[in-house]
Amino acid sequence: MNLRPGESLRQIRERKPLVHQITNYVVMNETANATLALGALPVMAHAREEVEEMVGLAGALVLNVGTLSEHWIEAMLLAGKAANARGTPVVLDPVGAGATHYRTDTVKRLLDELEVAVLRGNAGEVATLVGVAAEVRGVESIGGAGEPAELAREAARTLGLVASVTGPVDHVSDGERVLAVANGHELLGTVTGTGCMSTAITGCFLSVKADAPLEAAAEALVAFGVAGEDAAAEARGPGTFHAGLYDALYNLDPQTLDGRAKTG
Amino acid sequence: MNLRPGESLRQIRERKPLVHQITNYVVMNETANATLALGALPVMAHAREEVEEMVGLAGALVLNVGTLSEHWIEAMLLAGKAANARGTPVVLDPVGAGATHYRTDTVKRLLDELEVAVLRGNAGEVATLVGVAAEVRGVESIGGAGEPAELAREAARTLGLVASVTGPVDHVSDGERVLAVANGHELLGTVTGTGCMSTAITGCFLSVKADAPLEAAAEALVAFGVAGEDAAAEARGPGTFHAGLYDALYNLDPQTLDGRAKTG
Amino acid sequence: MNLRPGESLRQIRERKPLVHQITNYVVMNETANATLALGALPVMAHAREEVEEMVGLAGALVLNVGTLSEHWIEAMLLAGKAANARGTPVVLDPVGAGATHYRTDTVKRLLDELEVAVLRGNAGEVATLVGVAAEVRGVESIGGAGEPAELAREAARTLGLVASVTGPVDHVSDGERVLAVANGHELLGTVTGTGCMSTAITGCFLSVKADAPLEAAAEALVAFGVAGEDAAAEARGPGTFHAGLYDALYNLDPQTLDGRAKTG
Repeated sequence: MNLRPGESLRQIRERKPLVHQITNYVVMNETANATLALGALPVMAHAREEVEEMVGLAGALVLNVGTLSEHWIEAMLLAGKAANARGTPVVLDPVGAGATHYRTDTVKRLLDELEVAVLRGNAGEVATLVGVAAEVRGVESIGGAGEPAELAREAARTLGLVASVTGPVDHVSDGERVLAVANGHELLGTVTGTGCMSTAITGCFLSVKADAPLEAAAEALVAFGVAGEDAAAEARGPGTFHAGLYDALYNLDPQTLDGRAKTG
Repeated sequence: MNLRPGESLRQIRERKPLVHQITNYVVMNETANATLALGALPVMAHAREEVEEMVGLAGALVLNVGTLSEHWIEAMLLAGKAANARGTPVVLDPVGAGATHYRTDTVKRLLDELEVAVLRGNAGEVATLVGVAAEVRGVESIGGAGEPAELAREAARTLGLVASVTGPVDHVSDGERVLAVANGHELLGTVTGTGCMSTAITGCFLSVKADAPLEAAAEALVAFGVAGEDAAAEARGPGTFHAGLYDALYNLDPQTLDGRAKTG
Repeated sequence: MNLRPGESLRQIRERKPLVHQITNYVVMNETANATLALGALPVMAHAREEVEEMVGLAGALVLNVGTLSEHWIEAMLLAGKAANARGTPVVLDPVGAGATHYRTDTVKRLLDELEVAVLRGNAGEVATLVGVAAEVRGVESIGGAGEPAELAREAARTLGLVASVTGPVDHVSDGERVLAVANGHELLGTVTGTGCMSTAITGCFLSVKADAPLEAAAEALVAFGVAGEDAAAEARGPGTFHAGLYDALYNLDPQTLDGRAKTG
């Protein structure tokens, strides 16, 4: 596999692609700031009246079901179909799938009606979507879900997309190949929305590498994980880590990024 | 009274209870992060279609009327009734009661239709709900509202719940006993949502101490106040204080917490 | 022109005016915290049922179309008309005007139906509203829009308000006079919502200087820009800059502020 996160990051900063995000109330500010700190341009827009036009300006569309309701699902479908029609890549974050039937059913509907390039979730959420038993407590993956590399491969095959399953070690698969990414830090689990940020960052990388979604998804996790490592080095806890994470994304060095990837 | 905030904190971190929050747009990220930093698991969900199922997974339900509208009230009633049916404790934060009739009436309706374990508000908000004149400017309590210990006792008696009235010194009452908690720092008043955070933390403590809501409410204010003191020691203003508050919640030491309580 | 940002700041801190904000989901917490750090009191309320009553308590109304939908537009119109009827100044932030027809049309409707004291936007947004070609990518102004001093004057004349056009150098005009404000720092462009914060701060200054909207708008940009300079001095990137910005707003010194203004 040809992973070049540094070169993709350079292109993101040069082109400044617009990444249209229809996401949850809890993390909107956070994913917008992560996108901006990395070097792309975020836009949040969810009104039926404008999502199709907005996605026409975007290099990628990020859908996140973290605080779901009917109008938002409708907007996701409209935006997603417009993105599909234009060939704009779509990333889906199935926040809390498995916790309630409403979330699980909505994610299945989105997967059914839209062509999703990358599904980025935790093990419990992804397992739920391929019918593997798992425990999801609210929006956290607690246990079960089996061997993560196999889960990623199975999800990719079954759902016909790139599956990006994050955890202590991340696994990305297109159904054939599986790549493990071991970058990151445990403090990422102490801040709400870091999973959603990794989804937004995946959208940024996809926007400059739409023809190679497996590589884009893995490169995004390398970049985000390295930023997490850098932020942790300065942190005294979740609050200073959170602030430091935007500093670290902003200060990521395209020249040295490839050498810091812990992939296998 | 048997206050053991350190032991309750230890249990929160061990059990990691899910705390379901239907709260306002302004502070969702903040109360989720405070919950997570303390050691519990937050989940935000407000859709009619899922709130009853979600609250079934939760150890406590937090309702907060800070940015109210009709769909959200409906969701609060559905979730609250489901919580009541299961015996899951409910905390209510009457943000801005007294500022507009809509807020006052909605809070009264929630108090009327639901069994609320703890009402956590500022003096102006709580005074409004028991018919004592007070000045509420937007969501801030400006003056009046009388003697706070008596206000807490009166609210607890009249409304049939534990009243947790926060201010420079907090007062918690079940209608008979009144406990004062003097932990905290004035920088808490310079950051939006610290009141809402104290409500979320109250939910965390209630989830491991549902049978002793007076103690749970007081312990929560001790823990949150001590975190505020620790954060203030490092802060240069509201921004670094805010980041430091999550660090401090995360770094709270169950072994030393009891000894730091300023209660009476 | 009689710019006295220090004196206005002193009055804000003394009077603590309520600034009612109907704004977007992404920045609600941020604009509330900026308002509070400066020394005023924010309140967020968007329900049809309460906006007219809430604005009756406020010293200024801030409208921001950053994440628009039908109910919110209706609330903005109701609140704006109530503010107009009482003589309470209204600030409008046309976030993303020019990016979609829905945003452009909504902002034109608000300008048409309401009396707006100050329009605070970037060059692309303001250019769109006066029919000058400009490129708006999502919510960022990318290019075109012509000479900014002339754009501010033209917008003020055409729309009959004070135009506050922010960028590397800001320009504020009432259609006759044009004032340039060169305070600020490029890190402001790396954090989502700093434009929205400058709009909220404009509301704070207007609330103590409603009879001089040109001066109020310019003073607000001086104060916010100086805070940005102070925050940048301590920052290691967007995250620490963001936290430092609230510290800096809180620590602004009314005694020295006038001397730090870079106006011309």
